[in-house]
Amino acid sequence: MDIVNDEFYMSLALDLAERAQGQTGINPVVGCVVVKEGALAGVGTHLERGTPHAEVHALNMAGPKAAGSTVYVTLEPCSHYGATPPCSERLIAEGVRRVVVACEDPNPLVAGKGIQMLRAAGIEVETGILKDRALRMNEAFIKFITTGRPFVTLKTASTLDGKIASKTGDSKWISNEKSREVVHTLRHRHQGIMVGVSTVIADNPSLTTRLGVEGLQPVRIIVDSSLRIPLDSHVVSDGLAPTWILTTEQADDAKRSELEERGAQVIPCGAGPRVDLKEALLQLGQKGIASILLEGGGTLNGSMLEQMLVDRLIQFIAPKIIGGYDAPGNYMFSGYEQMNQAISLTGLETERLGDNIYVTGIPVWK
Amino acid sequence: MDIVNDEFYMSLALDLAERAQGQTGINPVVGCVVVKEGALAGVGTHLERGTPHAEVHALNMAGPKAAGSTVYVTLEPCSHYGATPPCSERLIAEGVRRVVVACEDPNPLVAGKGIQMLRAAGIEVETGILKDRALRMNEAFIKFITTGRPFVTLKTASTLDGKIASKTGDSKWISNEKSREVVHTLRHRHQGIMVGVSTVIADNPSLTTRLGVEGLQPVRIIVDSSLRIPLDSHVVSDGLAPTWILTTEQADDAKRSELEERGAQVIPCGAGPRVDLKEALLQLGQKGIASILLEGGGTLNGSMLEQMLVDRLIQFIAPKIIGGYDAPGNYMFSGYEQMNQAISLTGLETERLGDNIYVTGIPVWK
Repeated sequence: MDIVNDEFYMSLALDLAERAQGQTGINPVVGCVVVKEGALAGVGTHLERGTPHAEVHALNMAGPKAAGSTVYVTLEPCSHYGATPPCSERLIAEGVRRVVVACEDPNPLVAGKGIQMLRAAGIEVETGILKDRALRMNEAFIKFITTGRPFVTLKTASTLDGKIASKTGDSKWISNEKSREVVHTLRHRHQGIMVGVSTVIADNPSLTTRLGVEGLQPVRIIVDSSLRIPLDSHVVSDGLAPTWILTTEQADDAKRSELEERGAQVIPCGAGPRVDLKEALLQLGQKGIASILLEGGGTLNGSMLEQMLVDRLIQFIAPKIIGGYDAPGNYMFSGYEQMNQAISLTGLETERLGDNIYVTGIPVWK
Repeated sequence: MDIVNDEFYMSLALDLAERAQGQTGINPVVGCVVVKEGALAGVGTHLERGTPHAEVHALNMAGPKAAGSTVYVTLEPCSHYGATPPCSERLIAEGVRRVVVACEDPNPLVAGKGIQMLRAAGIEVETGILKDRALRMNEAFIKFITTGRPFVTLKTASTLDGKIASKTGDSKWISNEKSREVVHTLRHRHQGIMVGVSTVIADNPSLTTRLGVEGLQPVRIIVDSSLRIPLDSHVVSDGLAPTWILTTEQADDAKRSELEERGAQVIPCGAGPRVDLKEALLQLGQKGIASILLEGGGTLNGSMLEQMLVDRLIQFIAPKIIGGYDAPGNYMFSGYEQMNQAISLTGLETERLGDNIYVTGIPVWK
C-alpha cells in the first residue's frame, strides 16, 4: 500500500525519468515533481540534450503554485550555465520552500554546488531519498561523465551449459519471447549495440529495436579488425539505423571506401592487427556514445571481459542443454587458473521471465 | 494464514513423510494424521522398510479415538500382505469414518485397490488432496516401482559460463556455503552417489554426507570402465560408507581382487570397453538402489544425458565467470545440431540461495 511521504512523490519523479531512458543521449534522465499544499502541482522530465531540464518543465506547469512548494528532483539541480540556465537559480527565483533530491550530481567538479546555492538562498534541502534507484537509473551517465567512456552492458542468452548456439551455429531460439522483448527494451535504452563481425557474417542480424510500440534505434557498432563485413549485410545495406565499423589502421582502403559509400562510418582503432578495444571505447565516448549494449559473440564478449571493459553483465538463462564440445560459449577467453580468480558479480539481481532466468550484476575483477 | 481444512492436516502428513526422505530405502515415504472431533488424535510416519506403515503408527497413537475419526494419509493405504498386514484392513477394523488420500499407489498393479476396499466397507474416501506435493516427494519411489531402475538426479554446480572447474582443474569453490549444504541434504536423501573415476582421481572426494546434524551415508558408486581407481583413494580406503565400482567384464582381475579385499564391491556392467550405463542402472535397481545422485564430472553427466538416463536435473549457478577454452563444462557430450533439439526442462523451479541460483526441472528429450 502506498503511504504519502517523500518516497511517494520521489518515486513518481523516478518513474518520469525512467520512461525517458534512451532518449537523453549523453545527458542523464531526470524527473521532477512539484507539490504544493498537499497536492501535485507540476511534473516534468528531461527529454533530450539541449532542451529544458525536468525542473523547468515542472515549474512551468506549476506556474504561481511554485512559490512555497516542495520540489522533488531525481538529480541535484544544476548550478551552471550549459545549454540552459542553471535550475538552482530558477528554483530560487520561483520562491520554492523545500527541495528533495535523490542523488547528487555525479560529476565531481560540480557535485554539491547546486545544493549549496539552494541552501545559501534559504531553501530547505534534503538529499538521498531513493538514492540507490536514482543512481542505478543513471549508471551509464555516471560512468560517462566521470571517465569519458561509454558504459558497457554485456548481454548474453545462453543454455544451462553456457552455450549461445549449437555446434552447427543454430541459435533460434535459446531464450523465450519475454526475454527477447526485454532485449529489445535494452536496445531502446542504449545508444549503441556492439557485436563482432563474426556475428554479422553468421547471423546477418539487423540489430534494430523491435517493440510493440515504436522504439529508439541505437547506433550499430561492428568490431571488424580486417573489414570482413559483407557489403550486402543488413547493417550495411538496410539504412534502418547508423552503422559504425570499428577496425584498425591496417584496414583495406578500398573496402573502407565501399562501406563509406553505403553510409557506414569506418573508425580505425589502433595500429592493428586487432581492434584496440580500449581505444575504441574512448573514441566512441568522444563521438557522444554514453552507453553500449554488447551482444557478442562469445569471443568478443570474452575479450571485453578479459580487458575489464564490461560495466554490467546481463545473462538470460534458458532451461536447455544443447551440448557440443565446440558449440560456442557465452564468454570465450583463455580464462583464469584458480576459481578464486574468477570474475564475480556484485549487486546481483535475478528474476524469472517465464521459464527463463534473468541475471544481472556488476563484474568484480580479481 | 492457516485455515483448518483437509489441506491443513494433509500438509502435516506430508511434512511427516518428507522428514523421513532417505531412510525408507526402496519404500515410499508416507505420513499419516488422525483427526477426531476437531482435534489431532494420532500422527505417524513410515520409518524403514519392513517396519510398520505410517497408518499403523498413527492409529496406535490414536487408540480408541480412531473409531469415527478422519485419517489423512499421503499415499493410498495398502491392500496386500507384504512385510506387514494391509493397512486398509486395519482402518476398517478401527471403525474409521473418513479417509483422505493425497495420491493413489503408483504401482499400476495395486493402484486403487486399497481405496476400493475402504469404500466397500462404507468408509468415505477422498483423494487428490495436495497430490502434486505427494507425487514429487515420492518421484524416486514411483520411477523405481514402475521400472525397477533407480531415479537419477543429476546435480551440478557451475559458473555463468557453464564450467565446473578452471582450466587447471580448480573447483574450490564454485558454489556458496548454502548451496553446498543443500547438496549434502540431497546426498542424505538419495541411496547412492554416482561419480566417474576421473573425479575420484582428480579430486579424491570422500562423497559422504556432511551436515550440521547426523545424516545418512549413501552408497558411493564409481563408474570406472578400466578400474583406474587408486587403492588409496578416500572412497576405497576410508570405510565411511559402502563403495561400489561399476566396471566392465574386461576389468583386470587382480585389481578387482585388490578392491574387493578393501571392502569395495566391483560390479561388471556389460562386455566393455565402456560401462554400459543402462545395464548399470538395471543392476543397481536389482540391488535395491531406488535413487541416485549423479555428481559428475562433465563427461559422465553428458553420457547419462545423451542416453536419456537422467530423471531430474539440479543446477546450482554461481555468479562467476572463469573462462578457459578447455575448462571442463557441466554437460560434455557431442550435442545436438539444432537448438530445437536441445534437452529442455519442464516443471522448472528456481530459487535464490544467497548469491547462487538453484534451478531444477525434469529433462524432456526431443
